[in-house]
Amino acid sequence: MTTYTSRLSALRVGGAHKRWTGGRRVRRVAMLSVHTSPLHQPGTGDAGGMNVYMVELARRLAERDIEVEIFTRATAGALPCKVELAPGVSVRHVSAGPYEGLAKEDLPAQLCAFTHGVMQAWAGHRPGYYDLVHSHYWLSGQVGWLAAQRWGVPLVHAMHTMAKVKNAALAEGDCPEPSARVIGESQIVSAADRLIANTVEEAGELIRHYGAAPGKVSVVHPGVNLDRFRPDRGGRAAARARLSLPQDALIPLFAGRIQPLKAPDVLIRAVAVLLDEDPSLRERIVVPVVGGPSGSGLAKPEALHKLAAQLGVADVVRFQPPVDQDRLADWYRAATVLVMPSHSESFGLVAIEAQACGTPVIAAAVGGLPVAVRDGHTGFLVSGHDPRDYAATLRRFVDQPRLGETLGAAAAKHARDFGWGTAAADTAKAYAEAGSAHRRHLRSAHA
Amino acid sequence: MTTYTSRLSALRVGGAHKRWTGGRRVRRVAMLSVHTSPLHQPGTGDAGGMNVYMVELARRLAERDIEVEIFTRATAGALPCKVELAPGVSVRHVSAGPYEGLAKEDLPAQLCAFTHGVMQAWAGHRPGYYDLVHSHYWLSGQVGWLAAQRWGVPLVHAMHTMAKVKNAALAEGDCPEPSARVIGESQIVSAADRLIANTVEEAGELIRHYGAAPGKVSVVHPGVNLDRFRPDRGGRAAARARLSLPQDALIPLFAGRIQPLKAPDVLIRAVAVLLDEDPSLRERIVVPVVGGPSGSGLAKPEALHKLAAQLGVADVVRFQPPVDQDRLADWYRAATVLVMPSHSESFGLVAIEAQACGTPVIAAAVGGLPVAVRDGHTGFLVSGHDPRDYAATLRRFVDQPRLGETLGAAAAKHARDFGWGTAAADTAKAYAEAGSAHRRHLRSAHA
Repeated sequence: MTTYTSRLSALRVGGAHKRWTGGRRVRRVAMLSVHTSPLHQPGTGDAGGMNVYMVELARRLAERDIEVEIFTRATAGALPCKVELAPGVSVRHVSAGPYEGLAKEDLPAQLCAFTHGVMQAWAGHRPGYYDLVHSHYWLSGQVGWLAAQRWGVPLVHAMHTMAKVKNAALAEGDCPEPSARVIGESQIVSAADRLIANTVEEAGELIRHYGAAPGKVSVVHPGVNLDRFRPDRGGRAAARARLSLPQDALIPLFAGRIQPLKAPDVLIRAVAVLLDEDPSLRERIVVPVVGGPSGSGLAKPEALHKLAAQLGVADVVRFQPPVDQDRLADWYRAATVLVMPSHSESFGLVAIEAQACGTPVIAAAVGGLPVAVRDGHTGFLVSGHDPRDYAATLRRFVDQPRLGETLGAAAAKHARDFGWGTAAADTAKAYAEAGSAHRRHLRSAHA
Repeated sequence: MTTYTSRLSALRVGGAHKRWTGGRRVRRVAMLSVHTSPLHQPGTGDAGGMNVYMVELARRLAERDIEVEIFTRATAGALPCKVELAPGVSVRHVSAGPYEGLAKEDLPAQLCAFTHGVMQAWAGHRPGYYDLVHSHYWLSGQVGWLAAQRWGVPLVHAMHTMAKVKNAALAEGDCPEPSARVIGESQIVSAADRLIANTVEEAGELIRHYGAAPGKVSVVHPGVNLDRFRPDRGGRAAARARLSLPQDALIPLFAGRIQPLKAPDVLIRAVAVLLDEDPSLRERIVVPVVGGPSGSGLAKPEALHKLAAQLGVADVVRFQPPVDQDRLADWYRAATVLVMPSHSESFGLVAIEAQACGTPVIAAAVGGLPVAVRDGHTGFLVSGHDPRDYAATLRRFVDQPRLGETLGAAAAKHARDFGWGTAAADTAKAYAEAGSAHRRHLRSAHA
């Protein structure tokens, strides 16, 4: 019976999959990452978020029966040609230029060599061995362009960062990205069957800056790290102890860069309203503002300090410089509620992270936040930015001491939908759409 | 009968060809020239000697029934995809980056795009459509590497210039060639089935600087331009009139860079010996030294002036700064004999050019000169650099006034062997050798 049920469930998944793929199932993906290896530690050299992204995504794709082979440039001698990273995920080292001392700006001249290595690794396999090419960053996109042409399969590309976007936001003294990169990115945008953007904003940039056809862009949010952002065994009490915060206080938390867009001032003003209505709260409220000024240097955190002083709430607001990810998880856990009065929010990663830690969220009903927060279930959505509305919502947590706990439990459950499993499911969907686009393209070319 | 003879002759050529090809005949070559178009005028932009080289070589290859398609990057809109340059020679324009404003240093990032375009042009043809890839300059070599792999055919590469050689001879303030080029060139040296060097020196550089296997390098001298360097209808008299040189003088000519390696001093000393022996010659000898100091700045042309003065022959030596190619042809035609007392000469282009103009040559028996000059037939070879030996040889032209004319006629005929037809024949031979190497490589890979 168990077997029957499992098989039925598998069939259902397969059927649902079939519906949105509209075609041949992708079984094996050649993932390209020329300039950074998924085997490298993030935070060292060129390794960063993209490494985590690829590893997590590939693992979850493999769990969905999509085998992933990640091709990356060998940066040391004696590396094995192929390394098994996880079941269904392998890393292939490609010889292309010297192992050490190759500057990132010398990589464009190594793309033919890299392509040659990919083709050599592929040689001996039948033509349909890889069903799809998924390239990360423009350098890999150039190789992906050739590999997809060679194998007659769709090309899916993720930019991660874009030269035109970087160049549009250059600070004085910054070195602009070279035109070769801009040209290379434009070619990939036009050649790819599908572009994956991490956020709605990135999708807009692809369309605005590079003329990407809007129908060609999929938004796939990177997964939240549910291993790091999770409720702690010791619960809120332990986190408050670790941060030397009072156990019985109301703690509405702001976390994020201190910039007008994130509107931390709305929280400060709401707290002033709250204390004005109920001065007794002053003894049992702490308002942490965790985060530094925005990198652009346009933000003025002093203005926020001044505002708190002017409103007479400086004694309850605690400004906290940016902390590492593990410490941030403790701030989420310690808070009664996270407050996000943002004017704009493409995805709302912070709301997901807080919820993943078991903390409910009060959020402005903007951008991706109505998706990130389930109103009345995992937190509350507020229309507009009137501090009185935020004060009234905060008041509910005072009036109903168990509210935070109830919403928090639901929030932790809800956040699980935003893990890498979801990112992988959305990526698989993008693969299927790429397949359809590829077949349409082939049909029209042969018509 | 005529038909029979022609067919017999064709069979003979075919047979001879077969002997040195040792394998399948090359019928169609994909020639790659990413950065400069054979349709561009030499002397404009990046167009130079390489453009002439490709056009002349391709024409002569086509005459040998080797069809040539030259792929080059489109640098203007509305260019036709394919242009017929000559019977059996076509130029294909490949879209890779913007038509204008792409700097040469941005070209490495366009090599995937160029490869993509080459593959698109090839799409639809059967796999064996091109028998061989012949790439010029390292950028094209990178594309050739991929194309040869894709089509399973041999790769023949000509560097034309090399980064390591340029960097070894950097003057102060010169900008070194980037390491990306050095790496790229090394990869091509190792990937190519055959390397074509323009001279023995270039072959040595490939072996010394890039570790090329000596057996892999073919020396193919670029053809002499027999349209420019040819006897003039007006003969020597007309040339002397144009250059205001006396009609009845003995004119031993030095042409070339004024540097110790070329040994112009040996000619000056020989003339001094000659005038010492026969002072009456002083009234009817002119010794033109045509050429400037060497680019390296190491040569000291003043030393030569001083030497002529010290030896008391300054009045008969006429120093002439470098002239253009057409004017140079006139200097060759006007001379009684060209004197080349070089200490080293890889090929002896100047000896061929002078002979092509109908002028005999007295040359040191070094390097390629014994091949360039047929001793006693088109001029004379001298062992060593003793000025007395050169004087004695010059004396023969005084003693036998018809000698120059007789040798000159044979020289003009002999020089025809050094035209582009010979370059094409040698290139075809290199193609055949590349084919053998390729098959050997395939056999050992499958063994």
